[in-house]
Amino acid sequence: MSKKIDTGVFLTENHPRIISFSSVVGSKEGQGPLGGCFDEVIEDSHFGEDTWEKAESKFQLEAVCNAIKKGNFVKEDFDAVFSGDLINQCTGSTFGLRNLEIPFFGIFGACSTMAEGLLLSAIAVESGAVKRAVAVTSSHFSTAERQFRFPLSYGGQRTPTSQWTCTASGAVTVSGTDRSGIEIAGGCIGKITDLGITDANNMGSAMAPAAAETIMRYLNATGTTPGDYDYIITGDLGLVGSQLLIDFVMKQGIDISRVHKDCGSMMFDPDKQDTHCGGSGCGCSASILCGYFLPRLAAGKIKNILFAATGALMSPLICQQGESIPSISHLVHIRKGS
Amino acid sequence: MSKKIDTGVFLTENHPRIISFSSVVGSKEGQGPLGGCFDEVIEDSHFGEDTWEKAESKFQLEAVCNAIKKGNFVKEDFDAVFSGDLINQCTGSTFGLRNLEIPFFGIFGACSTMAEGLLLSAIAVESGAVKRAVAVTSSHFSTAERQFRFPLSYGGQRTPTSQWTCTASGAVTVSGTDRSGIEIAGGCIGKITDLGITDANNMGSAMAPAAAETIMRYLNATGTTPGDYDYIITGDLGLVGSQLLIDFVMKQGIDISRVHKDCGSMMFDPDKQDTHCGGSGCGCSASILCGYFLPRLAAGKIKNILFAATGALMSPLICQQGESIPSISHLVHIRKGS
Repeated sequence: MSKKIDTGVFLTENHPRIISFSSVVGSKEGQGPLGGCFDEVIEDSHFGEDTWEKAESKFQLEAVCNAIKKGNFVKEDFDAVFSGDLINQCTGSTFGLRNLEIPFFGIFGACSTMAEGLLLSAIAVESGAVKRAVAVTSSHFSTAERQFRFPLSYGGQRTPTSQWTCTASGAVTVSGTDRSGIEIAGGCIGKITDLGITDANNMGSAMAPAAAETIMRYLNATGTTPGDYDYIITGDLGLVGSQLLIDFVMKQGIDISRVHKDCGSMMFDPDKQDTHCGGSGCGCSASILCGYFLPRLAAGKIKNILFAATGALMSPLICQQGESIPSISHLVHIRKGS
Repeated sequence: MSKKIDTGVFLTENHPRIISFSSVVGSKEGQGPLGGCFDEVIEDSHFGEDTWEKAESKFQLEAVCNAIKKGNFVKEDFDAVFSGDLINQCTGSTFGLRNLEIPFFGIFGACSTMAEGLLLSAIAVESGAVKRAVAVTSSHFSTAERQFRFPLSYGGQRTPTSQWTCTASGAVTVSGTDRSGIEIAGGCIGKITDLGITDANNMGSAMAPAAAETIMRYLNATGTTPGDYDYIITGDLGLVGSQLLIDFVMKQGIDISRVHKDCGSMMFDPDKQDTHCGGSGCGCSASILCGYFLPRLAAGKIKNILFAATGALMSPLICQQGESIPSISHLVHIRKGS
């Protein structure tokens, strides 16, 4: 059972455990500052497939299968997989996992998907309806660019505030019965926030208010302060969005600057890799959670983190109709197991 | 708490209650055989908005607000809304509900979305993390046609197996603390099924195997037979898909023909309304659940139903790349409260 402590905020009581995790990234991500952290770096952006969409599906399947294997599980051990991605109709997920035969919950949270999947995995395991679940997501630079911005062959110039969609996937197994050193202590379900940003090349600014609202709601409900956490991690605000988040939260009297880490700002070296404001995409925070933060929690190097992945719920069609970009941020509280 | 009884199958123990529900449909649905059942029939397909996408968002918001009002709730009473739809990036949901301020879980199950949302609402309430949740979805003939098939102004001829995407929305409130006469007794999380159908105008055939797998898994796990239920309801298999489902299940020795109802086959009069194989779209089964079946449960006319909404996880882009249409069916067991 879990306990609701405020609107959309809960603490777990049985403390669902994170048993295993896996990260699979593309070539550019492998060349970045965190390149050595990931389980696999796939040099071929097509991953042996004939289209980028099929490649993204394969990244996601690879991450799930790795995570299952690393936990010494077989797929029959799972009652549910929570999965989603950025491609229209979540095809990275549905086509990627269609032969897996694990009961499937499709989710849509744009780049907040990893946190949404982890929240729902924890809730499902706490309810008793599900013994074990997998949360997984993916993104691919080439599938996202052509869907949300320009055809790659057009060779459009990227704006200073733009971010680079990561080719990456991350998968996490969550269990109510197995033991491990990492537990999910609580969570905060994001609210849709929209301050009127209309620039599809400035996603960080659209998402920062959502991250601020979610983080503040969790801190207030739990009566904790930034000093209680090793890190407060956002998904992919990038360099511009991260500064906005720190400013937003500071205006409410809270300084998160010393513990804040943003996966979008961590993935690439902006000087050497020409990525402007940083990385983005569902796979960005998913792969860094699985490649960088969870291994450090497992090793006891850090003990307590808030993982607040952020998603811009953008639709090219609706933006063409003059609408702004709503955003969301879901938060998962992960700590060393008791 | 709930109890897992087989892979992806669970029974609830606290029996989450369905407190209120609402259905809002378009003009053609209002003229069909069930026209008198729905809370609202909106004659204007634009619902006063300047685009069909914005109209669909308004249908969804209207259904949620009606359901909240009918339950004598205010929006602050809810910890989560589970919502999704067919438009790319689920914009019917994200843009429709962005000002609602209820914590938001985006889900993607195509036309199975209502059952997916109800399953997750029940699980969330059973976990204790969430006190009350809303499950909602929508579809719109004009947004779906131009996205998945042809521009309406092209005037393409519809094939005999095609179905008519309903302009409709349905919303259901689920609570762990309030009392009512309807409870969620259990559920079955769908598995993705793909038998190789590639015709985007023959969705019923693509979805029938998924419905058969889900219904059989629930009957087997619970040791029940079709005779134990007033109805076994599928989402929108239509006339062709419904016959396929009955045949598939019959091959396993189970005859559901006497209790089977298909929302797609119920929505329109195929002779008078030129709808070929019937209705489809997330809003089809959602509005019929909320307009036809739940009121009958509340009034005690029926006592026990299985609601197995069905979704074709089709993507135009991936179909153009030569892939077939994976499908899914989620099942919710709903009965008169004890």
